[in-house]
Amino acid sequence: MTDARSASTGMVAVVNAGSSSLKFSLFECSADGLTLVMRGLAQGLDSAARFEAKDPAGKVLATHAWEAGQRIGHDAALHHVIEAVRGLLPGVQLRAIGHRVVHGGTEFSAPELVTPEVLEKLTGLIPLAPLHQPDNLAPIRLAFDLLPDVPQVACFDTAFHRSMAPLAQMFALPYTYYDEGLRRYGFHGLSYEYIASRLPDVAPALASGRAAVMHLGNGASACGLLDGRSIASTMGFSALDGLTMGTRCGAIDPGVVLHLIQQRGMSAADVERMLYRQSGLLGISGVSSDMRTLLASDEPRAKLAVEHFVYRIVRELGSLAFAMGGLDGLVFTGGIGEHAAPVRQRVVAQMAWFGAELDAEANAANATCITTPASRCAVYVIPTDEELMIARHTLRALDA
Amino acid sequence: MTDARSASTGMVAVVNAGSSSLKFSLFECSADGLTLVMRGLAQGLDSAARFEAKDPAGKVLATHAWEAGQRIGHDAALHHVIEAVRGLLPGVQLRAIGHRVVHGGTEFSAPELVTPEVLEKLTGLIPLAPLHQPDNLAPIRLAFDLLPDVPQVACFDTAFHRSMAPLAQMFALPYTYYDEGLRRYGFHGLSYEYIASRLPDVAPALASGRAAVMHLGNGASACGLLDGRSIASTMGFSALDGLTMGTRCGAIDPGVVLHLIQQRGMSAADVERMLYRQSGLLGISGVSSDMRTLLASDEPRAKLAVEHFVYRIVRELGSLAFAMGGLDGLVFTGGIGEHAAPVRQRVVAQMAWFGAELDAEANAANATCITTPASRCAVYVIPTDEELMIARHTLRALDA
Repeated sequence: MTDARSASTGMVAVVNAGSSSLKFSLFECSADGLTLVMRGLAQGLDSAARFEAKDPAGKVLATHAWEAGQRIGHDAALHHVIEAVRGLLPGVQLRAIGHRVVHGGTEFSAPELVTPEVLEKLTGLIPLAPLHQPDNLAPIRLAFDLLPDVPQVACFDTAFHRSMAPLAQMFALPYTYYDEGLRRYGFHGLSYEYIASRLPDVAPALASGRAAVMHLGNGASACGLLDGRSIASTMGFSALDGLTMGTRCGAIDPGVVLHLIQQRGMSAADVERMLYRQSGLLGISGVSSDMRTLLASDEPRAKLAVEHFVYRIVRELGSLAFAMGGLDGLVFTGGIGEHAAPVRQRVVAQMAWFGAELDAEANAANATCITTPASRCAVYVIPTDEELMIARHTLRALDA
Repeated sequence: MTDARSASTGMVAVVNAGSSSLKFSLFECSADGLTLVMRGLAQGLDSAARFEAKDPAGKVLATHAWEAGQRIGHDAALHHVIEAVRGLLPGVQLRAIGHRVVHGGTEFSAPELVTPEVLEKLTGLIPLAPLHQPDNLAPIRLAFDLLPDVPQVACFDTAFHRSMAPLAQMFALPYTYYDEGLRRYGFHGLSYEYIASRLPDVAPALASGRAAVMHLGNGASACGLLDGRSIASTMGFSALDGLTMGTRCGAIDPGVVLHLIQQRGMSAADVERMLYRQSGLLGISGVSSDMRTLLASDEPRAKLAVEHFVYRIVRELGSLAFAMGGLDGLVFTGGIGEHAAPVRQRVVAQMAWFGAELDAEANAANATCITTPASRCAVYVIPTDEELMIARHTLRALDA
């Protein structure tokens, strides 16, 4: 650690701001690359805000709790984070801040050094992601004031998917909408990009082959990687489409939305709330949005929710396989993908006809490769690291 | 013909009523089965109504044109059809009328003899198919008055898909919606059922195997047939979902509907009109909803529309294949499926990795089997006959 620090060339901070939370992490830059030194979370910003920072081993370095009922917002949270870091690491040299930004629209196909002009463009994309983009941009705007000399880099969840062919991005709507940005963007791009960066080491054949990567967390999607590039995503225009998620519906007929509004008198806002917050695993099970809870439950509808999650994955794997002209292997990542062995077991079991053969022991151990050597479709578990991906991008953008 | 008539045991009429048209056909019943004797169409019912009846060879038997600008409706149209048939076939003994009804909801999984109680139930399903169900039911109600002694049978586009497992029918919405009927129903069921009835003769291995049938017309869908039973359909709750259609959008992110309403200020009715009438092949191409026109066009967007149509088919074939645990063969049917050799060629070409090998000559000739003997995935072209299927069902329902 002393050696690494002596070689330090400063720190990169990564910020991921949600509607009522602000996650951050700090990476030390050295000739050896990026090393995580701290991560923290300010949460409950709209009601019962608290802050905690930990070292990479999970040891708590600092905590703070605001008065309950107070709405402190991103402003006070970021202020507190900056002060806390200065207290913990006096004299820290912050080289740059990388921000996770959900939407880069059609223009941003790579991370971007944020200028006032860029920030204005990103603000213009709010209609494409009204629930997330404003929160992602708030700390950028604040940091311009609080840390005017620190460069900021926006890293987009959509950028990695800009390699998708127009056909894969296009809805069969009047063409003008395509030009205006009503497209399948795909999300979780930073996660997929990280996985793609790991494949040459972990699974060289997949790195240059046809892989389907499943990012399964509270949000969930799958991505077809052909030669390491995204050729299709199950996520569409919004964060609702594709796989069954914790509380989001995944793919549904557009006629359902029209029916709920026209025949049942719901408002668009009601439907939006229901599709984002009351659907998915929670909606089917009526029990929980948490896969661990559902897997441990004997409730028939909890089991049904898990079956639906698996069923929709299998259907989308088929769709991606046919889009790529075949499938050499799978990668599971994200909270569920990395830890829920029963989910992986069921997905692989349904691909037995395709030649997938599970190594049950390896699967139970969340091992890197969970199929037998004889399996004609290799299946991997690779922990994702979106923060490290953002930190890498941020450094690269400084050099560009 | 004389012989057949002497053995006649009466006629079955088939009625298919749309928003501004009324199609009918007449089948003669005999010991040999059902023989088409006449078909007719009253169209333009809302503005420039005209009627024509033809024999099976296409010879015009009767025509009529109403005054332009007059809105004659199903009532006058059905009246005219009955009088025309009586004039052409004096003394005709009408045993029953079979009606195509788009929606049978969760209750009707088979054709149903229509009583006033059944008609009431079917009327209660209008919210599930507000654009089509009322028109389908209008002639049933009229025929109760005009032909009170003739039994009427409702044949549903949804019924054949009631064999789908709950998982395949379920959206990941709050569970109560499933119980209330917000499900994937699937449509074109009468077409798929007819194809399934042909498979034992045309392709015995597929009849007991895993087939993906594509009904490609102005409306389009694909259906997974496992051992002749529907296990999944690309059509969902409404007639919008799944494949790219003539003027309908096929699968789109539900967030698109919300965006158009919440961010662009469109009304639900505006969005509905756009998704049903201005999207699909017409929307992308800006040229036409007709596949023949698009295939003959040099316009880049016409080509793009055809490519999108093929792309979406291939994606959904993959999804169905993985749902069935494999795919032994394909069947093309419907206007495009039966006649558009270039579309079939492109779909099969994209399945080369899966072992599909086109017989180009057979394909150009719209032959029954269009793959080579070596093809590991057999591909068939089978003309559909929904009217005959309805006539069969109607006769069977009388005997039940």
